[in-house]
Amino acid sequence: MSTAPGSPHPASPVEAVLHALFERHRSTLEGQVADYIPELSNADPRAFGICIATRDGHVYEVGDTRQPFTIQSISKALVYGLALQDRGEEEILRRIGVEPSGDAFNAISLRPGSGAPFNPMINAGAIAACGLLDKDAAGSRIARVLEFLSGFAGRALDIDEAVYRSESETGHRNRAIGWMLRNVGILDEDPTDTLETYFRQCAVRVTCRDLALMAATLANHGLHPVTGQVAVQPGAVRNILSVMSTCGMYDASGEWIYRVGLPAKSGVGGGVMAVLPGQLGIGVFSPPLDAQGNSVRGVRVCTDLSRELSLHLFQAGGPLPALRLVYDASKVHSRRRRSPWQRELLAQEGHRIRVMELQGDLVFGSVEPVIRAAHEQASGLRALVLDLRNVLAADEPSLRLLARLQQGLAAGGLSVSLCHARALGPRLVAQGLAPGSLKPDIDMALEAAEELLLSRDARQAGAGAAVALRECELLAPLAPQDLAWLEALMPEQGFAAGEPVVRAGDPGDAMFFLLEGTVEVRLSGPGPGRGRRVDVFTAGMSFGEMAFIDGAPRSADVVAVQPTRCRVLPLAVFERLDRERPQLKIRLLQQVTRQLSTNLRRINAEAQAMRG
Amino acid sequence: MSTAPGSPHPASPVEAVLHALFERHRSTLEGQVADYIPELSNADPRAFGICIATRDGHVYEVGDTRQPFTIQSISKALVYGLALQDRGEEEILRRIGVEPSGDAFNAISLRPGSGAPFNPMINAGAIAACGLLDKDAAGSRIARVLEFLSGFAGRALDIDEAVYRSESETGHRNRAIGWMLRNVGILDEDPTDTLETYFRQCAVRVTCRDLALMAATLANHGLHPVTGQVAVQPGAVRNILSVMSTCGMYDASGEWIYRVGLPAKSGVGGGVMAVLPGQLGIGVFSPPLDAQGNSVRGVRVCTDLSRELSLHLFQAGGPLPALRLVYDASKVHSRRRRSPWQRELLAQEGHRIRVMELQGDLVFGSVEPVIRAAHEQASGLRALVLDLRNVLAADEPSLRLLARLQQGLAAGGLSVSLCHARALGPRLVAQGLAPGSLKPDIDMALEAAEELLLSRDARQAGAGAAVALRECELLAPLAPQDLAWLEALMPEQGFAAGEPVVRAGDPGDAMFFLLEGTVEVRLSGPGPGRGRRVDVFTAGMSFGEMAFIDGAPRSADVVAVQPTRCRVLPLAVFERLDRERPQLKIRLLQQVTRQLSTNLRRINAEAQAMRG
Repeated sequence: MSTAPGSPHPASPVEAVLHALFERHRSTLEGQVADYIPELSNADPRAFGICIATRDGHVYEVGDTRQPFTIQSISKALVYGLALQDRGEEEILRRIGVEPSGDAFNAISLRPGSGAPFNPMINAGAIAACGLLDKDAAGSRIARVLEFLSGFAGRALDIDEAVYRSESETGHRNRAIGWMLRNVGILDEDPTDTLETYFRQCAVRVTCRDLALMAATLANHGLHPVTGQVAVQPGAVRNILSVMSTCGMYDASGEWIYRVGLPAKSGVGGGVMAVLPGQLGIGVFSPPLDAQGNSVRGVRVCTDLSRELSLHLFQAGGPLPALRLVYDASKVHSRRRRSPWQRELLAQEGHRIRVMELQGDLVFGSVEPVIRAAHEQASGLRALVLDLRNVLAADEPSLRLLARLQQGLAAGGLSVSLCHARALGPRLVAQGLAPGSLKPDIDMALEAAEELLLSRDARQAGAGAAVALRECELLAPLAPQDLAWLEALMPEQGFAAGEPVVRAGDPGDAMFFLLEGTVEVRLSGPGPGRGRRVDVFTAGMSFGEMAFIDGAPRSADVVAVQPTRCRVLPLAVFERLDRERPQLKIRLLQQVTRQLSTNLRRINAEAQAMRG
Repeated sequence: MSTAPGSPHPASPVEAVLHALFERHRSTLEGQVADYIPELSNADPRAFGICIATRDGHVYEVGDTRQPFTIQSISKALVYGLALQDRGEEEILRRIGVEPSGDAFNAISLRPGSGAPFNPMINAGAIAACGLLDKDAAGSRIARVLEFLSGFAGRALDIDEAVYRSESETGHRNRAIGWMLRNVGILDEDPTDTLETYFRQCAVRVTCRDLALMAATLANHGLHPVTGQVAVQPGAVRNILSVMSTCGMYDASGEWIYRVGLPAKSGVGGGVMAVLPGQLGIGVFSPPLDAQGNSVRGVRVCTDLSRELSLHLFQAGGPLPALRLVYDASKVHSRRRRSPWQRELLAQEGHRIRVMELQGDLVFGSVEPVIRAAHEQASGLRALVLDLRNVLAADEPSLRLLARLQQGLAAGGLSVSLCHARALGPRLVAQGLAPGSLKPDIDMALEAAEELLLSRDARQAGAGAAVALRECELLAPLAPQDLAWLEALMPEQGFAAGEPVVRAGDPGDAMFFLLEGTVEVRLSGPGPGRGRRVDVFTAGMSFGEMAFIDGAPRSADVVAVQPTRCRVLPLAVFERLDRERPQLKIRLLQQVTRQLSTNLRRINAEAQAMRG
């Protein structure tokens, strides 16, 4: 809650919101501190802390956010997840219901018939969940519970032994519940050990900050946002949040979801943990409780936060449409330079190669419009490229739909490729995507698609063949005697595949005319793109004129990727032309200017297409 | 469920999923058609339809999706929204609870004390909601209800009079409920009219397709995705979805949210309407009901759809991070061309102007990381630009945080501007944003920020002043006698503010050297960018060389935006130089080439920065 160090700027507006909220409720002292055991009744009623932890692990905090207190019933929501992991959803559902009971938290409410507790948030359900946990090697459960809860906090938690002892000494009603559960067969063994585990579980010490990070872990599909460790399986997160949303705030749960709209769980230690799925976690600590057993200030702070920041579950926006940008290959090309006829063909036919750039989280709602657009646009297309570079995450159903899209369109003769898939690649293949349709990057995907279009032209068979110097595009308009004069002063140079032709930082003292082979211009220097090809030249093309003309050193590496033969125009010869062959120099400069101007127009058009 | 017309491609994978689901459950005939009135018992138990409507109004449908049936209890969820609009949330909450009752739909369950029905999804609560509606001019409520429900369907609905009459003739239990509500003072008047309205409301005829669109309207914050009309206020949507999530599927609601995870409402006519907020709506129609009164196939189809497409509320991803791209003004510039010293200063100091491009729905969870990044990066910055062009929607709290960010950083001396705000602009100002910090587009925002940086240099005071021809950047290196020779052949031309200098399509037969004033290059031709400035030239700069050199006609309009004086180099003179002054021609071409090559490098760097 302080000004950024060394910054003249005040606290961020988010900190300001928390601060105002803290001040607003600071003097509220309504409610009663829990007093069924002396250890709880000793809590300072003035203690008050508020934390928000974001899905990426940033924590906003104000007040007594580092003061320890016992987790109490908040543990019920989390340990239910461990029981789900241990026994599977169906067995847990047979033994513990998921219906709100409308009763107080400590009611002995078992469903008629099965005898199953109504839900895992009342004591009966939580004791049943505890009794269904697997034991560790030493035959005990509490070490597993402590480790599991510590995973949510992102630090090693411990047990308040004094609170545990008091809970155990006074827990007669819970013992009655335990034996009832044994009686109806929900528990398969003597409940004594289960009850001691449960009393210890409730006495685990946490802070307000821990609660916010636990909630953020639930918001983040079970992955702790700071440690990056899996605290609980994603499937169990869905179930935990479901019971928190319907049963988390005792018999006020319906009104809680209606007014606050955040799955939450409270504990008699004064803690409240609330989750906005996919976004953030909230922790509040204030010991005085209302008649339902919820922290008075905890309820008020969550209510205010939800209103002021629009955090209600049913108010927040959906995922962004996955379709970020659509363009076609008449404007945007692979890095491979093309000859004049190829350029013309791609300008005319490039619209038959369509690129769809996706973004964000791929879920049904975001990927369905992509599927639909692809189908609507498929007619007349020769190739479709899905660029996944801005995709953050994807669930299996959306990957399955993309795989089926590829299969279906391929059956209709349309080439579909997916690029920049990274970790999604193997998952797409597992869903049925043809492995050959994965391309490493957009450049390779575009090149393959361009080759498909070009291959329909007979001239493509001869593309890339060796040429004479007079066939080089830049020199083609020269008079034969000029060309002959020049050729005599241009030594030939050969490069093996993999051999560097120029290196970044070299002086720009020559221009290269390719007679045979292929070279790639590659990004040099530090940075993530290092080594990536940014230009590809083949026979008949020339390169090196940029540094050549503005006198700057080479800005990138050029490497032969096939055995390559060039004619080299030295800078000294180019300069001699001023006096000895001024008309030839003018012609050459005009050709270079024309080429630069063509490139400038092309890159401008490309940049505009990429802006959407 | 058909192949796209004229397409060789099969059904889309989304259609394939629906089709498979339909086939899987087609032969299921479990359950009993409702039989408490003859009109319902006549329903064909084989009738079966499934629809998904997306938030943008696309409808996937299979089976009997256009067959009318009565809406029954599904109307309860929607009409509750009308009551909320008429009476406000607090009054409605005083009279109708929001807690699940655990009882059957037709239980006479009123809360002890207040006598308020437990929730609006049981008959008692729905009758109370109906009785709380405002009357229309004719003193009746049903016309308003019909119009309101029609708004959700996007078409005019009508009432099945036979069903209405039967419901009314047999509705003794509901009459008892009505009088009970009158007795405890939840209803203020004789319930007779309210009950007839309620019977008619339940007899409104809908189709499976209507249900999907109604659900999609709820998913779309109350805006019908096809008609674009507001069916219900967004605030009421949050409340409707809340009660659907806790009480929508009778006493199986807890398990429904747990297993299916979609707020939903069923009706004894065989319909089920389910909503994935922010994403889509589902409608299912199949008359046979289970013991709870929910359509057997409706429940199964929703369960399968949720599993197969991962539609569970607590499983779907959150909104995309709003921060799409960050770049600075050392690489990306306004369209205003700068003189050499200005270019150098911007290259060195441009990193002190930072641009953050935002995207998607601005909600707290997506905008908070932006606020945080802005604060972390504020030190050392001179200007911060937030580009909102890719923002789809924003709630008030996120706009308030942005406004406070601007205020807070401005107080610390940092200029913050927001561009491409469109309809968000007035809302931002209403939240306290300084109106002057709104800029129409990124170009204007960058220009203003650049001027801030440049204004610290004494030379900026003289920028834009009139120059002599020899001070033009392109001609500066020429020998005085060459320049004098050229000047004699370059007529002077003047343009008033607003006067065109060249027009798109004109032959490129001259190059312009600006001695005084400012011209803008503007996009011509059709398209959304028409008239937008793409280049700005001031005194000392030249333009027109592109068309001049490659012989193509002018590609854009150039307009004087101030009184402007130019020297004009005609194409004929440029061509005469070949023979008469070849060294001068070489010098000029080298200058042009150098300038083009500088621009090419600049645009390449800019394009790379914009790719992120």
